[in-house]
Amino acid sequence: MEPIFVTDRIKNIIPIIREFVISELIPLEKDHLTRPFKQTEIILQAKREKVKALGLWGLHLTKEEGGHGLTLCEFGQLSEIMSLAPYYGQYTFNCQAPDIGNVELIGKFGSAAVKEKFLQPLLEGKIRSCFSMTEPEFAGSNPTRLGTTAVKEGDEYVINGHKWFTSSADGAAFAVVMAVTNPSAAPHERASMIIVPTNTPGFELVRNIPIFGETGEGWASHAEIRYTNCRVPISNLIGQEGAGFKLAQERLGPGRIHHCMRWIGIAEKGLDLLCKYAVSREIEEGVLLGEKQFIQGFIAESRVEIDAARLLVLRTAHNIDLYGAKAVRDQISGIKFYVANMFLKVLDRAIQVHGGLGLTDETMLANLYQHERGARIWDGADEVHKQAMARNILKTYGLDIKKKNK
Amino acid sequence: MEPIFVTDRIKNIIPIIREFVISELIPLEKDHLTRPFKQTEIILQAKREKVKALGLWGLHLTKEEGGHGLTLCEFGQLSEIMSLAPYYGQYTFNCQAPDIGNVELIGKFGSAAVKEKFLQPLLEGKIRSCFSMTEPEFAGSNPTRLGTTAVKEGDEYVINGHKWFTSSADGAAFAVVMAVTNPSAAPHERASMIIVPTNTPGFELVRNIPIFGETGEGWASHAEIRYTNCRVPISNLIGQEGAGFKLAQERLGPGRIHHCMRWIGIAEKGLDLLCKYAVSREIEEGVLLGEKQFIQGFIAESRVEIDAARLLVLRTAHNIDLYGAKAVRDQISGIKFYVANMFLKVLDRAIQVHGGLGLTDETMLANLYQHERGARIWDGADEVHKQAMARNILKTYGLDIKKKNK
Amino acid sequence: MEPIFVTDRIKNIIPIIREFVISELIPLEKDHLTRPFKQTEIILQAKREKVKALGLWGLHLTKEEGGHGLTLCEFGQLSEIMSLAPYYGQYTFNCQAPDIGNVELIGKFGSAAVKEKFLQPLLEGKIRSCFSMTEPEFAGSNPTRLGTTAVKEGDEYVINGHKWFTSSADGAAFAVVMAVTNPSAAPHERASMIIVPTNTPGFELVRNIPIFGETGEGWASHAEIRYTNCRVPISNLIGQEGAGFKLAQERLGPGRIHHCMRWIGIAEKGLDLLCKYAVSREIEEGVLLGEKQFIQGFIAESRVEIDAARLLVLRTAHNIDLYGAKAVRDQISGIKFYVANMFLKVLDRAIQVHGGLGLTDETMLANLYQHERGARIWDGADEVHKQAMARNILKTYGLDIKKKNK
Amino acid sequence: MEPIFVTDRIKNIIPIIREFVISELIPLEKDHLTRPFKQTEIILQAKREKVKALGLWGLHLTKEEGGHGLTLCEFGQLSEIMSLAPYYGQYTFNCQAPDIGNVELIGKFGSAAVKEKFLQPLLEGKIRSCFSMTEPEFAGSNPTRLGTTAVKEGDEYVINGHKWFTSSADGAAFAVVMAVTNPSAAPHERASMIIVPTNTPGFELVRNIPIFGETGEGWASHAEIRYTNCRVPISNLIGQEGAGFKLAQERLGPGRIHHCMRWIGIAEKGLDLLCKYAVSREIEEGVLLGEKQFIQGFIAESRVEIDAARLLVLRTAHNIDLYGAKAVRDQISGIKFYVANMFLKVLDRAIQVHGGLGLTDETMLANLYQHERGARIWDGADEVHKQAMARNILKTYGLDIKKKNK
Repeated sequence: MEPIFVTDRIKNIIPIIREFVISELIPLEKDHLTRPFKQTEIILQAKREKVKALGLWGLHLTKEEGGHGLTLCEFGQLSEIMSLAPYYGQYTFNCQAPDIGNVELIGKFGSAAVKEKFLQPLLEGKIRSCFSMTEPEFAGSNPTRLGTTAVKEGDEYVINGHKWFTSSADGAAFAVVMAVTNPSAAPHERASMIIVPTNTPGFELVRNIPIFGETGEGWASHAEIRYTNCRVPISNLIGQEGAGFKLAQERLGPGRIHHCMRWIGIAEKGLDLLCKYAVSREIEEGVLLGEKQFIQGFIAESRVEIDAARLLVLRTAHNIDLYGAKAVRDQISGIKFYVANMFLKVLDRAIQVHGGLGLTDETMLANLYQHERGARIWDGADEVHKQAMARNILKTYGLDIKKKNK
Repeated sequence: MEPIFVTDRIKNIIPIIREFVISELIPLEKDHLTRPFKQTEIILQAKREKVKALGLWGLHLTKEEGGHGLTLCEFGQLSEIMSLAPYYGQYTFNCQAPDIGNVELIGKFGSAAVKEKFLQPLLEGKIRSCFSMTEPEFAGSNPTRLGTTAVKEGDEYVINGHKWFTSSADGAAFAVVMAVTNPSAAPHERASMIIVPTNTPGFELVRNIPIFGETGEGWASHAEIRYTNCRVPISNLIGQEGAGFKLAQERLGPGRIHHCMRWIGIAEKGLDLLCKYAVSREIEEGVLLGEKQFIQGFIAESRVEIDAARLLVLRTAHNIDLYGAKAVRDQISGIKFYVANMFLKVLDRAIQVHGGLGLTDETMLANLYQHERGARIWDGADEVHKQAMARNILKTYGLDIKKKNK
Repeated sequence: MEPIFVTDRIKNIIPIIREFVISELIPLEKDHLTRPFKQTEIILQAKREKVKALGLWGLHLTKEEGGHGLTLCEFGQLSEIMSLAPYYGQYTFNCQAPDIGNVELIGKFGSAAVKEKFLQPLLEGKIRSCFSMTEPEFAGSNPTRLGTTAVKEGDEYVINGHKWFTSSADGAAFAVVMAVTNPSAAPHERASMIIVPTNTPGFELVRNIPIFGETGEGWASHAEIRYTNCRVPISNLIGQEGAGFKLAQERLGPGRIHHCMRWIGIAEKGLDLLCKYAVSREIEEGVLLGEKQFIQGFIAESRVEIDAARLLVLRTAHNIDLYGAKAVRDQISGIKFYVANMFLKVLDRAIQVHGGLGLTDETMLANLYQHERGARIWDGADEVHKQAMARNILKTYGLDIKKKNK
Repeated sequence: MEPIFVTDRIKNIIPIIREFVISELIPLEKDHLTRPFKQTEIILQAKREKVKALGLWGLHLTKEEGGHGLTLCEFGQLSEIMSLAPYYGQYTFNCQAPDIGNVELIGKFGSAAVKEKFLQPLLEGKIRSCFSMTEPEFAGSNPTRLGTTAVKEGDEYVINGHKWFTSSADGAAFAVVMAVTNPSAAPHERASMIIVPTNTPGFELVRNIPIFGETGEGWASHAEIRYTNCRVPISNLIGQEGAGFKLAQERLGPGRIHHCMRWIGIAEKGLDLLCKYAVSREIEEGVLLGEKQFIQGFIAESRVEIDAARLLVLRTAHNIDLYGAKAVRDQISGIKFYVANMFLKVLDRAIQVHGGLGLTDETMLANLYQHERGARIWDGADEVHKQAMARNILKTYGLDIKKKNK
């Protein structure tokens, strides 16, 4: 918690959420890896009702959408607290990715009809959705290159394509699909975002892709999907034709804040587990792990790095609130790679301190690492963000590399 | 391959093994994660027969044991090649851990009866064995602290204890168990090594422990075991009573060479996959991944670090051959942490370069990382080896920390 | 600049200081290494008059002292700007270390007489002072161990001791000396701070110590000093007898903010030089340095790390303003090692990007590195701060290492 | 020392050199920074006579040149020992850079007349030489780009140009100058190497360039030089016209071995000083620095990294001996950046462990760092070697980046 970013509005909510997470969700973690996912979903359904009863539903939503009208910076801080139960927190509060991004997208750019049909049940937590952009055939770091097409026929789009890493597709009611509608336009203006219900003929969930050995299920999965002559009404378009890339950018700004705050919560959890073990594990007769300088080094460095990460993310969120994502895209790139690397390092240290135990399923550390190693890859690999950021900085020094190399 | 360490004896064997691994074993990898383990075992059984037919069985054995009488340094180089098929290589050549260590141990210190009963079938590949030392209740980095006891009653030992990370126990015919026989002796002289057949009443394989999410099976597993009043004949003792710690040290020297060479083989495989992807994946229109300096940096650094690791390990093996493990225990500590960190870093880079694909089960990279993250922990965590090594070095400068702090 | 910390009071001062630094001070840098120090002092004297004329004198002072009454957090941000001319900035604004610390110390704890005699001329910039704590015979990281003694005789202290790294002693009017007055008290209550004018008989400036090859002169130097029967009136005591360690701690909190903000200013300067060179230096025919990913990586990482550092320091300063240094000593430890490492890394990258040029005296980079390598050592080495911080964190988990090891 | 590389020929020489360095040279270090350079030269002249008397002169030379006919790998190991007195070692044995490189160059490619006039006195240690390649106007990492020209007029070359980092020019009898003789040839065939005596009219040593604050003198300096209509006979050409780049490559292979072995010697010295301090400095009452894990970590990591570096360099030297430099240019690139980074890191750790003392001139550590920070830059910056190495590796995978981007 950074007091400077804590507003009056969230000052009182934070302890309530923390208490809820600690008493309602964290106790569920013990059996997470052995309990069937379906059963977890049932348990969480009850927790979601409690959240509603507490008036904490829709913390990410505008007042118009029935939410609290929090800023991104305010919500981010709540999201961190939810992440102390990383598997359940966001879902229980109905602000899990990718729904949170889709809600924002449709809320801003969807037609009234689309909102009624697709947004409303999302807000109520009756359905889930997914976001279908990355394709195996093209490097994900360059979203202007796509093989999926949406061809207009009459008042329908006919969609064909192959996607993967469509997270949470398993069980979702619809996908927001990125497809080329305007192949002869400039690269950044070729694609559009179109809603495809998952019961559309031709929508095939090929498989949930094993990620670091874990196939997952439901919202905790990443699907490979084929779209074969999927027909949807033209009115399922979000925003303008050809605006897909622009919308994706728009979506990513807050999306990265959400991810980063979640990662910071996980880092806090990792450091907490590390410290708890350090004060309880005897390494030699009468000597606790925490008395060893190597362990102390891990603790001190983790503490500073987590704090640095949180400050970076919250000031970026604050700036998005004030100036919009585009104005601070370098800050967004910066937190993406800084936080992703930071929290994986903290998790790795926590595993190392736990020794053999850290590799097992008796702590969540190894499982979290498996789940999250992708953080340095998706939404733009470290390398892509570093390059993009540096190029923007160099532009202010008069070197426009993109233009120069045209 | 480092020509300076390649002897005439292995010069001709290396290409044969490489060819065997490439043509017989690597093609099996594609289905590794989906094929039932039992079926894999059957397939490998046939490959083991081929190895015998080629006269390459028992590469790690002395001539007396029916082997080739290779030095540790020579064998290590063959082991690296086997590791290019990390799941199958060593097993197919019957020189997988922990059997390879047990063979050496029993070969050196077992009585004639023990050798006939337990060693011979191991050499022939008819049975497998395991090594049961680490206990959940005590920090594994300090093997002098043990809760497992072996009490002499008549001509039997009665063994009680709780172990975990007993690798390959699933399906093994016997365990070499580390147990306290002399509780009132000096710490380093309390434990003994005793052979316990797994069909001994009271031997309970509680479970295969999920390691980084993977439970494994057969020799590819790590078990939790309870020993409850397990009775074995006194003649199952290996070496002297109270010599357990000394034997464990003896066992670890070559054992670390084996692990390190395996890790180097894995690193080579990781770098190879990285390079192959770098020359084939388009990142932008007409630009391949390998043209990017970030990727080039990964490649150059990995290349040098792998070479450094191999040189360090082979010179250490060479010195063990010449002077014994005790004389170069600092070198053994050094390679343990250097190589473990090196190859995990190379794997991590390879995953990163593959992007999303690197997280899936379509390359072996993520799976190898899961399997092997423990490298920095077992057989002594990085931190333990660094401390031990530095203390030895400082002793040559006149500071004996252990003695000082007594 | 982090808008969230920019108050109305400093919003207008910042551009004025920046302009002053750019137009009045940075042009002096070119000849810094060749111009005699005395001549530099004369030039800066004129600049100091300009500062007074602009009403910017004493930015660090309370209103009572004739200053602006800025908070530490506000002043810190101005100090960063001054550091864009690292050799001249703080001195020109009369808020250079160690005077700034001594001013604060005497302002808070000096008697009226001491204030009139020693503080007033400091505030006016008529004299300089130094702080004499570290001793060659004892590890500087443990300020409770001191060999220097101050024995009361009548109404005088008789001081004997040997100090080094007494920065800016050369030309100073007085030293604040840390000396043992109560040898039989508890370790933390043995030492006192006493003012010793440098013209006191027995005060011997042995030499300015070459630091990374640079001996320096005047305020840009670090002296070795012998105190031999130096007699000063008892009224020269600052605060209570035995309070020396407590005062030193008090002094260090804000002192570390000052240093850290200066280092951040230097990092910004380093990154700026790096970027300027990257957009102007051709590395191959038609290819500029800045087009290379390695260089881009340096830029992006530096940008994020500098921002992280600034946020960490300003929130710490803000918290000191609100709660006092003691309440956030962990944050102070954290920034000490984080920022020191960060800015040296940025300087090192800037040197590397400049190639041979970066090693010469044609940029300030190498010289700054020489000057500042000590940042990771003085005021507590990295290792000391990490240990202290971790121990405090572990105390909140119930492990009080100091108490346990007593 | 790595026994595997120690031949019978050097087994006996090593202890003699070590003894010489310890008893004759290291005692001179204490006053190195205060003793006038000219006086040091006189002292070393006497030491050089002793070396001759011991029959250890010309250890780097072929038997034909009056040397010992050692391989590069053998000589490298002696060079490491000399570096334990880094300022004096190589010079005292007359195998200092750049003379050692020039000797090899002229020995291989000089005409008989050139050899008699320039090589012979070099071999005898009567004169010194320098190598004049790098130019301030062009990135040093790309030696095919040069502004210096040598125009043939009659039987003379007329040379014009501007060079810097011409090491040891101060006091040298001649320079080997890299100059464009064939401006219309392919880039790699434009330059030639020509001997220019330093008393040639038009040869102007502008200044010794301060490197990290140290201007140096004599062979311990790096000069800026202007060549203005310098006329030298055509017979001063080394090798063929246009072969300059090829010769430079030829020169660099062994040259990098020399540098790397010198750096390894320095690293050993740094680690030795670190350990000595660690066992003697009390950090708390009764606790020595060496008892702290942070320091132990520095020691263990340094030990392994130095060993890795030595093995990498010696196997590379061995391969150059067997196959020539061209065949192992990747190994040469690899050691260049690996060793340069390694030994600077070791020096940095040694400085850190010494605390304030490490910054002063009372140990050689800071001074060595100043001298040697350039190691990561000259003879090809880290980044250049990594790129070159990776490109070569990728070529073996079928991607020829240079060709592709033509």
